[in-house]
Amino acid sequence: MTAVDFSAFVDRLAQESGEAILPFFRTSIGVENKLREGFDPVTAADKAGETAMRALIRRTFPEHGIIGEEHGDDRPDAEFVWVLDPIDGTRSFILGMPIWGTLIGLTRGGSPCFGMMNQPFIGERFSGDGSSASYRGRGTERRLRTRACPRLEDAMLMSTSPTMFTPEERETFEQVSADVRLTRWSGDCYAYAMLASGHVDLVIEADLKPFDIVALIPIVEGAGGVVTTWDGGPATDGGRIIAAGDKRLHERALERLSKLG
Amino acid sequence: MTAVDFSAFVDRLAQESGEAILPFFRTSIGVENKLREGFDPVTAADKAGETAMRALIRRTFPEHGIIGEEHGDDRPDAEFVWVLDPIDGTRSFILGMPIWGTLIGLTRGGSPCFGMMNQPFIGERFSGDGSSASYRGRGTERRLRTRACPRLEDAMLMSTSPTMFTPEERETFEQVSADVRLTRWSGDCYAYAMLASGHVDLVIEADLKPFDIVALIPIVEGAGGVVTTWDGGPATDGGRIIAAGDKRLHERALERLSKLG
Repeated sequence: MTAVDFSAFVDRLAQESGEAILPFFRTSIGVENKLREGFDPVTAADKAGETAMRALIRRTFPEHGIIGEEHGDDRPDAEFVWVLDPIDGTRSFILGMPIWGTLIGLTRGGSPCFGMMNQPFIGERFSGDGSSASYRGRGTERRLRTRACPRLEDAMLMSTSPTMFTPEERETFEQVSADVRLTRWSGDCYAYAMLASGHVDLVIEADLKPFDIVALIPIVEGAGGVVTTWDGGPATDGGRIIAAGDKRLHERALERLSKLG
Repeated sequence: MTAVDFSAFVDRLAQESGEAILPFFRTSIGVENKLREGFDPVTAADKAGETAMRALIRRTFPEHGIIGEEHGDDRPDAEFVWVLDPIDGTRSFILGMPIWGTLIGLTRGGSPCFGMMNQPFIGERFSGDGSSASYRGRGTERRLRTRACPRLEDAMLMSTSPTMFTPEERETFEQVSADVRLTRWSGDCYAYAMLASGHVDLVIEADLKPFDIVALIPIVEGAGGVVTTWDGGPATDGGRIIAAGDKRLHERALERLSKLG
């Protein structure tokens, strides 16, 4: 099984999950139902997307494991394990903002080896295998490369929400934020995609689950960036995460973050 | 001159400004140039978009006035005045996030009578004339309606950035934010578009310029919502702005906001 084969298969996963999820996006029917009957459109979309992907994986690679947000773990100790988040950015999804994404990650022996972030409403896909990364959308296809940005004071920083941090983490984050050129919230998976694309220099987050980050690691690393925990360890298990487009910037930000016990 | 004619003309403004702006979006060349030579891609895109719109307006309606972010005022006392913001959401634009928009507003005798928010990268347009509002995108066209949400504790709140508020304004904002169901940053013009679409219930902002809000008023009002200043006055001049999809919610939020001197 080559990486090329997985890449084509991931395109099918993206296509089928997108078709399952999109009918729930920007539907006011769902919201009305939620208020009246406890129906939650984003949960329904999440489940529909994950069900579609799980069915295709089980049919095609029955020996592979699956870790998903909605339906739990299945053979998590297999050699190949798919790590799925049908809707990363559920709050954006709920608000009709088109900056959520479907995260499709693949680990081999516990290490991320392929990842895709698919945005089916806009129609763009960011993917990577740790050594290269690419973009497809709007009829174009191109290589993704992070940009050079060695200094904190030139950096564009993204994160998802102030509420993802504990008070101590928040204080540490604010210290870094005070020194960068621009800080922007509501990033979710797009923060990492834009870092891989060379438009964002730094992403600092906390309280991430494995399915929030596994798919994004091979994209960021494939584009030339670094993703670790705040103490410099592997990011695969989630938690406190920092991604940087420039290794020198990563080192400088890590000096600040690692002071937190 | 009927509203229908203006609507078709605004489509041409949207088309031409989109073509002028898009070449600058997600260009790493621009960023490199900026660092080396002081070239700013978002300013260049802003200017190109406004130049395109101004030229078309002058050719078609030489007697109309124009108020724009980049090139200043031209006949601001004319009966019809165009109020233009080529890129609302410049920080999103800079970071490659596709949630900026081109705002095209038209006032007659100082009152907003038509507005459009155009997102040329995604390909969606939100427009309104104060009595109705509509969406076009992804091959569909539909009427926009705000949703019912009378209570603050059920409301989804959007705003753009904590840095847009003075410390006193921020404190007032936080008091409202503490009572709503969800608060989300980085909204810019999309916050109002999603409110008109029935996905967001409340937008609370400060420090807005007329060109940040004029185009959005006929969209929100046309969809059934309300836009005023924090003390309930007309929103046309910008400043501290509140928009609500439900008039009852607007009243309740206004009670909190109007306490600020």
